[in-house]
Amino acid sequence: MMHILEDSVAQKYSQTALDHCDELAQVSELEEGILRQYLTSKHKAGNQLVEKWMQQEGLKTWQDQAGNQWGRLPCKDPDAPSLILGSHLDTVPNAGAYDGILGVMLGLELMKIAKANQLALPFHLDLVGFVDEEGTRFATTLIGSSAIAGSFNSQWLEVKDRDGVTMADAMQQFGLEPSEVINATLDPEKVLAYWEVHIEQGPVLEAKDLQVGVVTAIAGAKRAVISYTGITGHAGTSPMNLRKDSLAAIAELTLAIETIALNCTHQEVATVGKISAKPGATNVIAGYSEMTLDARAQNDQDLEVLLNKIVDKAKLIAEKRELLLTWKWTHQAEAVQCDQNIQDLLATACEENNLPVFHLASGAGHDGMAVAKICPIGMLFIRSPGGVSHHPSESVMKDDVTQALKVMYSALSSYAV
Amino acid sequence: MMHILEDSVAQKYSQTALDHCDELAQVSELEEGILRQYLTSKHKAGNQLVEKWMQQEGLKTWQDQAGNQWGRLPCKDPDAPSLILGSHLDTVPNAGAYDGILGVMLGLELMKIAKANQLALPFHLDLVGFVDEEGTRFATTLIGSSAIAGSFNSQWLEVKDRDGVTMADAMQQFGLEPSEVINATLDPEKVLAYWEVHIEQGPVLEAKDLQVGVVTAIAGAKRAVISYTGITGHAGTSPMNLRKDSLAAIAELTLAIETIALNCTHQEVATVGKISAKPGATNVIAGYSEMTLDARAQNDQDLEVLLNKIVDKAKLIAEKRELLLTWKWTHQAEAVQCDQNIQDLLATACEENNLPVFHLASGAGHDGMAVAKICPIGMLFIRSPGGVSHHPSESVMKDDVTQALKVMYSALSSYAV
Repeated sequence: MMHILEDSVAQKYSQTALDHCDELAQVSELEEGILRQYLTSKHKAGNQLVEKWMQQEGLKTWQDQAGNQWGRLPCKDPDAPSLILGSHLDTVPNAGAYDGILGVMLGLELMKIAKANQLALPFHLDLVGFVDEEGTRFATTLIGSSAIAGSFNSQWLEVKDRDGVTMADAMQQFGLEPSEVINATLDPEKVLAYWEVHIEQGPVLEAKDLQVGVVTAIAGAKRAVISYTGITGHAGTSPMNLRKDSLAAIAELTLAIETIALNCTHQEVATVGKISAKPGATNVIAGYSEMTLDARAQNDQDLEVLLNKIVDKAKLIAEKRELLLTWKWTHQAEAVQCDQNIQDLLATACEENNLPVFHLASGAGHDGMAVAKICPIGMLFIRSPGGVSHHPSESVMKDDVTQALKVMYSALSSYAV
Repeated sequence: MMHILEDSVAQKYSQTALDHCDELAQVSELEEGILRQYLTSKHKAGNQLVEKWMQQEGLKTWQDQAGNQWGRLPCKDPDAPSLILGSHLDTVPNAGAYDGILGVMLGLELMKIAKANQLALPFHLDLVGFVDEEGTRFATTLIGSSAIAGSFNSQWLEVKDRDGVTMADAMQQFGLEPSEVINATLDPEKVLAYWEVHIEQGPVLEAKDLQVGVVTAIAGAKRAVISYTGITGHAGTSPMNLRKDSLAAIAELTLAIETIALNCTHQEVATVGKISAKPGATNVIAGYSEMTLDARAQNDQDLEVLLNKIVDKAKLIAEKRELLLTWKWTHQAEAVQCDQNIQDLLATACEENNLPVFHLASGAGHDGMAVAKICPIGMLFIRSPGGVSHHPSESVMKDDVTQALKVMYSALSSYAV
């Protein structure tokens, strides 16, 4: 049976989580604005502050070999597996105060509530503050979560930051031993699941007037750079019907991509974020133009279907306009499904708390993508006002955070023995 | 009655014109490639070379107060008006050898033939090599032809070149007196007409397998920078139906502009040569995007109709997508009609020489636009292989030049008394 927290009680805890987010926001590399990058002094200071809060609640704390910050509320059985709660503590430049961090802070409050209610759980509750989910410093994302999943790539150690410092050197300066990162890997047998609360970073929940949503999957993504080559020409002397205009072809494909994605029915998205033309002059028909494509879907089959439609259209345009088409894949991430049992559990917890049940996919990447290699994962999204994230104006509404905490606690309580 | 030149005779003259073009191509500011800018030592050297060729044919020569090079084959009646033949002697950087120059050189050959045939004309034949039609040095076009038409703008004297030298200073260094440019103005009473032969700089004649074409008008042009402002968003987390994607709107308008222009029936053209997006990242929906528009038509009414359709479509897109539209006009040039009588004369001359009569508008600007303020103008286009100009590979075919010369001579001969 699920426990239901009183709103008034839950609000006290959610306020603490928000206060912690605000306090952690002060730990920043920037004088104005938030930035905490991997293996910097602010990474260390952030970990120490979070560790202090963990210790205040009596958690056993440690920092692993990748620099992730951990705290444990132990099970009576020392050999029990663990349920991991958490998210990441690092940020993009000029970040908001909640992306990642709120998930860690809510995990801590969840553990406090479990402790206060003497919830007898058949597993350890482990709280993790992951390093470098964002990839701000080394352009390599999900470093901390990859490390615990045993998929830290040792080649990453040679990647340099903007100042030419390798990750290996930065680790040593930080006090970590690069050769030992492998030891941060967890034994899958010892991990029951990974639960993460995160702000949506999108406008869906707000548009549906919902406070929280159960995540179905973290979308798979593919990116490409697409170009058409035509014939450069004089904008005045080339009749419309004799042109080989590469930029008009790019425009046609851009518009088609939008239409194709709009007509998909499984939350697929496709974005053209950049277009450029050569020579790129007002009075010259562009002989060469290129565009970027970012396409995402809840599962790899949907993504493939979407991309096949786009590729077919691109070829059709090239044929019709007698242009040369080039297509270069630049990035690929497979879709990761959230565990169905955890989805069902979170859905039931929403119902028990009188919240509408709503499922949505995450278009953005999250630590769960890496952690899913070793255990089932589940995620709960909190409404993002304006859909804004990665920006100082990123926000959450206190009651939404309270409801998220209530849902997570109800779900957790179902395991009480 | 029109005279018809024998092909073999005409070919000799056209070869000389082509040889002159090649020789003039050596007078260049660049070690490799052609460049002759206004008021440079190469402008002076070019004028001197052309003056030498004029003098060899017994023409009376002079340089006017704007730096245009003139030569006259006088009428018996010293008070007779003049028919001006010519084009420009300046070039864009890395130019071809024929754009402009060929028109001057063919004018010279025309005068030689007239003289050799003792054509008794009731007017002086004046040959002009205009300065700075291209606007390469001071980004101000049609300087020489504006000067003879009395529309030289004295504010141009303050315009600086890339090195910060004003046009006024450059004139003085060249040996011209800025305050006297006004004296280059011709008395409209003394000018019968202006005839110019020019390469087409477009693919129309080639596509129709024609050697020459009679120009109907020099297109009017308007240019604009158009922008849409939407909402910047995460490419993964923003569902398709909740986006305010400025770049998709730009793509829709770009494609619509192409369709609108394709459906016009009076040789209207419209070009989007440049598109940019902010922030312009692969994984970000662009909140702001802009595009350039270059639209041209044979007459200002057609241009207005074309532009109204484009503006209406742009507004419709903004409305439908709930975006902010901005529209900034950046350039405007009115269409200039070629004189109907001269068109008819050139058409008849084509017929007399067994050439198909074909009329076409010029999408590019020419000196005639300025000269039309003081007299009727007529232009004959010579086929441009590949439609190429403003490039080292710009070319003409000798027999096309020969036919153009024959047409012009037949037209001229019709005035013989």
